[in-house]
Amino acid sequence: MTIKNEVRRLAQKAKSAAEAVALLSASQKNKILLSVAREIRKKKNFIIAENKKDLACTRSAGLSGAMVDRLTLDAERIDGIASAVEDVVMLKDPIGRIIEKWKRPNGLSIQKVTVPLGVIVIIYESRPNVTSECASLCLKSGNSVILRGGREAFRSNKAIASIYQQILKSNKIPVEAVSLVETPDRSIIDELVQLEGLVNLVIPRGGEALIRRVMEKSRVPVIKHYKGICHVYVDQTADTKMAENIVMNAKVQRPGVCNAMETLLVHKKIAPVLLPHLAQKLIEKGVELRGDLETQKLVSGIKRANQKDWDTEYLDLILSIRVVDDTSQAIKHIQEHGSGHTDAIVTRSKKAAEEFVKKVDSSSVMVNASTRFADGNQYGFGAEIGISTDKVHARGPMGLEGLTSYKYIVRGKGQVRT
Amino acid sequence: MTIKNEVRRLAQKAKSAAEAVALLSASQKNKILLSVAREIRKKKNFIIAENKKDLACTRSAGLSGAMVDRLTLDAERIDGIASAVEDVVMLKDPIGRIIEKWKRPNGLSIQKVTVPLGVIVIIYESRPNVTSECASLCLKSGNSVILRGGREAFRSNKAIASIYQQILKSNKIPVEAVSLVETPDRSIIDELVQLEGLVNLVIPRGGEALIRRVMEKSRVPVIKHYKGICHVYVDQTADTKMAENIVMNAKVQRPGVCNAMETLLVHKKIAPVLLPHLAQKLIEKGVELRGDLETQKLVSGIKRANQKDWDTEYLDLILSIRVVDDTSQAIKHIQEHGSGHTDAIVTRSKKAAEEFVKKVDSSSVMVNASTRFADGNQYGFGAEIGISTDKVHARGPMGLEGLTSYKYIVRGKGQVRT
Repeated sequence: MTIKNEVRRLAQKAKSAAEAVALLSASQKNKILLSVAREIRKKKNFIIAENKKDLACTRSAGLSGAMVDRLTLDAERIDGIASAVEDVVMLKDPIGRIIEKWKRPNGLSIQKVTVPLGVIVIIYESRPNVTSECASLCLKSGNSVILRGGREAFRSNKAIASIYQQILKSNKIPVEAVSLVETPDRSIIDELVQLEGLVNLVIPRGGEALIRRVMEKSRVPVIKHYKGICHVYVDQTADTKMAENIVMNAKVQRPGVCNAMETLLVHKKIAPVLLPHLAQKLIEKGVELRGDLETQKLVSGIKRANQKDWDTEYLDLILSIRVVDDTSQAIKHIQEHGSGHTDAIVTRSKKAAEEFVKKVDSSSVMVNASTRFADGNQYGFGAEIGISTDKVHARGPMGLEGLTSYKYIVRGKGQVRT
Repeated sequence: MTIKNEVRRLAQKAKSAAEAVALLSASQKNKILLSVAREIRKKKNFIIAENKKDLACTRSAGLSGAMVDRLTLDAERIDGIASAVEDVVMLKDPIGRIIEKWKRPNGLSIQKVTVPLGVIVIIYESRPNVTSECASLCLKSGNSVILRGGREAFRSNKAIASIYQQILKSNKIPVEAVSLVETPDRSIIDELVQLEGLVNLVIPRGGEALIRRVMEKSRVPVIKHYKGICHVYVDQTADTKMAENIVMNAKVQRPGVCNAMETLLVHKKIAPVLLPHLAQKLIEKGVELRGDLETQKLVSGIKRANQKDWDTEYLDLILSIRVVDDTSQAIKHIQEHGSGHTDAIVTRSKKAAEEFVKKVDSSSVMVNASTRFADGNQYGFGAEIGISTDKVHARGPMGLEGLTSYKYIVRGKGQVRT
């Protein structure tokens, strides 16, 4: 069978499975997910054994320590995977919710009701827990999922997916509701994302190269997650202690994630008070600072930030700093260099806060809070299928709701159009 | 200047204009739109004169009568265009609406607030009133619009767009908030839809070939409107009089539109009572019937429907008819042959209605009402920018809300993540 045919068959089966999953009640879905969690705990040793095979290949392939760590599953992490499934059970069922209802003058009653999307393709890398996260969220939202994980985690992913399939089977649901692409050939992704009519949404969870490749080939909607070049702007009226705390947290707490700060903007009137001490604290934490001329005047011995720095997502202990004239200039900098992910202002001025909130067109705009809060769990969504840097369908942290569509149900008494 | 550069410049200007339009208050936007309506009425003769030039070219190009009619503007139609703008003024402002707000245990207060999408590209054909419709809806929702109308309506479209630009200018808004692509070269569309980061949404309002072409080239989200193969299923418990009215309305009232019925499914128990009389009425109205074997037994002298018929959007006075065993078979037929647009059931059985509503995965599902109601105006949206046959972002009739995105505004008192 050619790859084209193989992929099409896979998607067709996922589509019929989706029809079955869409009809499950909330309690049926929760029952399945609880069984999955139980089975994951029960099969801990099996998963660890499969994971060890992945790890063995990885070591011979010479992966970095960080990547090996991301890939490794132990008893505790598997427990975490099972608990995460139980957390999904506790979430409100997103399907069948009446978003709006109204009556028309001609007596028609209209309801706008949430429905599943259908078949969702998720392409991801490394961490095998993503397999379970995505499968549980797609099932909970009444969708089928086609999973395509990284090759290095293949056996671990397959072990986890097989548990889902086993539970689906024992509940008489087509196992293709959770499908794992087994063919290593990368061209399979290109084929998958062209299956308009069979696949309803593609979520590439990976680096920019992956997303761009998917975008180029795709004929179905894609939720994109490009970079997060996040800013913190410290206004002249800011509480300096608060500003310090927020800046430290946004940069240092976990520098490798998309909602970490990459650029600090400081109002010129507060810069002399704030920057020398704050810079010292950052340097103590191992942060490399790159400043504009004004910053260099206040903090000696740091590198000059160049044009490229303002547009770079470091994902590392590096921070660019610019001193700005006012809130407008800070906003302008963000409009020019930001990525529309998350930006924060620290201020005691209501006026500055409102200007910032209104003019900064980012999926999350923070006032007096760390950029690190831009996250599905922190927002209370309970789970996060991704963070969208797109404005269409879903924007920012994307929970279960992002995996739904809606339909209009119109009930009449024989009305016809005149 | 190459087309690539020209298009990029156009989109960049539309993007800066979008930043200005996004900040307008509801009353500022309404004031602009009311001025536009007034100016359209005032410049009636100018628009008619420009339209006449289009018509002159069209006649030499040998367009069909229907197309010439769609293109023609007279005093009454221009009045209609102006009134439609006034109707948009009356709509609730879709921007700045708090969709949800909540507080987190750590004291963060979160609001999910509607914002404009940014720059919207609309590609359309023939009718010049679409120019004004799209421009008014995009302005009302705080977006910039790049319009690409049909070549045959170029002067008419330009006349209408120029009125928008004149009013924008006198209100000190960048005129590029309403841009009309003037270059006739079709490759300009291919370039436009690749401008990721500058264009936020593409809405092709035209035939399938246009949509497919856009989909193939696009790197930005596209709202698709494929065909409407709409079904009416008459259940055994249906009121036959009601069934007749709905079928006649769905087929005959305006056969050339996407929410008209293309296939009639009739329960075998009601077929002998319903079909002979109904068929006669349809034939009287000039409808060509194509039936399955069972239908042919009940209605003599009609053609046999072939496999292709079940998958065809006739957009004409042609109707396929199939007799089915029960509701399940009707649903299965719709799942196999429908296009997910609009399908209706006529029934007195609550159970049949609920099964149909639950299992038919179409953007509009009607119970005892004509498929012809699937329409933004009929749903009370006041205006319709298109009908989406996609499930992502917007589904079904799409009003102002479909032209918005949202952002999260998070307000704290210095919270950091632990």
